Amino acid sequence: MDTAEIFNHVRKTTMAEIEDAIGKIDAKMAAELVSEILRSRKVFCVGVGRVMLALQAFTKRLAHLGIDAHFVGEITEPAIKLGDLLIVGSGSGESLFPLTIAKKAKSLGVNIAHIGSNPNGSMAQYSDIMIRIPVRTKLALADEVNSEQPMTSLFEQSLLVLGDIIAQVIIKEKGLDMRSLWLFHANLE
Amino acid sequence: MDTAEIFNHVRKTTMAEIEDAIGKIDAKMAAELVSEILRSRKVFCVGVGRVMLALQAFTKRLAHLGIDAHFVGEITEPAIKLGDLLIVGSGSGESLFPLTIAKKAKSLGVNIAHIGSNPNGSMAQYSDIMIRIPVRTKLALADEVNSEQPMTSLFEQSLLVLGDIIAQVIIKEKGLDMRSLWLFHANLE
Amino acid sequence: MDTAEIFNHVRKTTMAEIEDAIGKIDAKMAAELVSEILRSRKVFCVGVGRVMLALQAFTKRLAHLGIDAHFVGEITEPAIKLGDLLIVGSGSGESLFPLTIAKKAKSLGVNIAHIGSNPNGSMAQYSDIMIRIPVRTKLALADEVNSEQPMTSLFEQSLLVLGDIIAQVIIKEKGLDMRSLWLFHANLE
Amino acid sequence: MDTAEIFNHVRKTTMAEIEDAIGKIDAKMAAELVSEILRSRKVFCVGVGRVMLALQAFTKRLAHLGIDAHFVGEITEPAIKLGDLLIVGSGSGESLFPLTIAKKAKSLGVNIAHIGSNPNGSMAQYSDIMIRIPVRTKLALADEVNSEQPMTSLFEQSLLVLGDIIAQVIIKEKGLDMRSLWLFHANLE
Repeated sequence: MDTAEIFNHVRKTTMAEIEDAIGKIDAKMAAELVSEILRSRKVFCVGVGRVMLALQAFTKRLAHLGIDAHFVGEITEPAIKLGDLLIVGSGSGESLFPLTIAKKAKSLGVNIAHIGSNPNGSMAQYSDIMIRIPVRTKLALADEVNSEQPMTSLFEQSLLVLGDIIAQVIIKEKGLDMRSLWLFHANLE
Repeated sequence: MDTAEIFNHVRKTTMAEIEDAIGKIDAKMAAELVSEILRSRKVFCVGVGRVMLALQAFTKRLAHLGIDAHFVGEITEPAIKLGDLLIVGSGSGESLFPLTIAKKAKSLGVNIAHIGSNPNGSMAQYSDIMIRIPVRTKLALADEVNSEQPMTSLFEQSLLVLGDIIAQVIIKEKGLDMRSLWLFHANLE
Repeated sequence: MDTAEIFNHVRKTTMAEIEDAIGKIDAKMAAELVSEILRSRKVFCVGVGRVMLALQAFTKRLAHLGIDAHFVGEITEPAIKLGDLLIVGSGSGESLFPLTIAKKAKSLGVNIAHIGSNPNGSMAQYSDIMIRIPVRTKLALADEVNSEQPMTSLFEQSLLVLGDIIAQVIIKEKGLDMRSLWLFHANLE
Repeated sequence: MDTAEIFNHVRKTTMAEIEDAIGKIDAKMAAELVSEILRSRKVFCVGVGRVMLALQAFTKRLAHLGIDAHFVGEITEPAIKLGDLLIVGSGSGESLFPLTIAKKAKSLGVNIAHIGSNPNGSMAQYSDIMIRIPVRTKLALADEVNSEQPMTSLFEQSLLVLGDIIAQVIIKEKGLDMRSLWLFHANLE
């Protein structure tokens, strides 16, 4: 196969994986996350590596919707308080830094939502709700989507797409006018 | 519709849009980008906002593949030189900061690849190759995928997925062992 | 000289340079910046490279003081509006990206404060006030502090210290209780 | 006092504190850090908050000197290995995230240098060398410089200045031509 043919092959397998993973997300749990976001005073997100990047994109979009959203570690991160929500992204539920943050947040009485794949990881003890993207983990649970992609690419892709679906649900729930979103968008770029 | 039903509806429309946009990418142009990446000494990426985040995920993955990849603006960004490649992400081809960087890079004789939607934007004058993700722009070209999503979400999602497809093509072209990729992965997290 | 002796020598020359540069800042202009910060709705800061890092430290401290402070380019950067203040850090007054941002902010009617060394650079046309740290620039103005340090180190050091002096002036002006500052400090680390 | 007079007062007290703290650093320990940096394959730095910003400025300068320097958490952070050096910045020696990273690095056999104030904190168990900036901590050791500044400002200022002094010592040790430093400097800004 030449490079273009390899591209065509990988394009198909990758899209099929994302389609499968996104399709298996429990709509009721996603709806619960939407409610949690809408009833919280501030929303904080935390993750590492490429999971962090996908969550930063989500945080940015939430801010465009007029939600007081922050990323743990950002320059002007405020204090988190009772009534706020912490969203933790971690496929395995075992990522060290997010776990440390979740433990601290829990001790402050903050609500915690975990977006991950493994429901039996260490995050389970801190999470009030879990939104599961059922992609392959080391545990290989029965319903998990297999992936030919390197590392946790499929989780990261699904996380970005899930975040953007949730953002659209919020737009519809709040009846936001899409053109008005630009009012909250950074205008210095 | 209750929130879960809205979620199910948006999930379908969003996945259909991504499927459509990714499906319309010219495999030959993508293959050309792969060649450019593999024959360049260093690869630099630049973009703003959520496009920046999608490109940072790509940069991170390229580094895992043993490619000397950098993001413009990162703490330890090296000097760019003849023989290096600059990848610019910009849907409209009009984003101010990437244009400024592209102009500077061009003056240094660097090769430039533009990943965008609009082939007629200001980026055209600086780009050696363009990989087109044909999503809706202000121009509304005939082949563009329409989107119900806010702002340029569809471009950002497609950009992340395209980057991950290209990474997999590189893995196959270079015959990399997927388990060996962890050798280059940050191990302090 | 052995390494410890070189360290002792450089320690002396570096501290003398900082002492000299900080000492030559016009207290009246610094006081004017304090007034501008206190009467603005939001404060945005922008700079590149190590100047960016010094200004991010300033932005972070302003946020601790209860000021609605932001850094241009941060994940959740809001829109800037009439009544806000943009603080630009640039020694030469010629840094490309800050100039682009200042031009855009000016067109939105935003107030602009320039912290720099060169009063005759391109920033002059956009600035409402300039706070001058008189360190060596290419122009070598008569009152400028000479530096044996590489690149623009002296400007960056002076900028960090100036920012922290201004923060303390604000604490005194607003009569803030230093222990209460922790209320605004990120508590998830 | 009017604002300009307050500025003049704070300028004096702040500069006196920095002068005092920098003056009390043990030149032999600083020289040892220089040796460690010069004999390591790669140098990684880690810290949080404003300490992170001061260390990022140091990392950036080290990279300009041709040293293979990285910041823990940066987009293209490579794997750390035996023969590399981890520099941890933490005044109290108790910051959670740097401690976690230090523990992990130690388990990989990496050399660790701690720049801090408290020699008796948890970092002591992981550190091969400690460079002490003796500013006020909760312990109030006999030789510590008192500070009227908020939070750990004095430590952060001293850390930036110390980093820049060390960079100059390295320039002299390696006989680098200051003009040649621009060869390593990012040229896309």
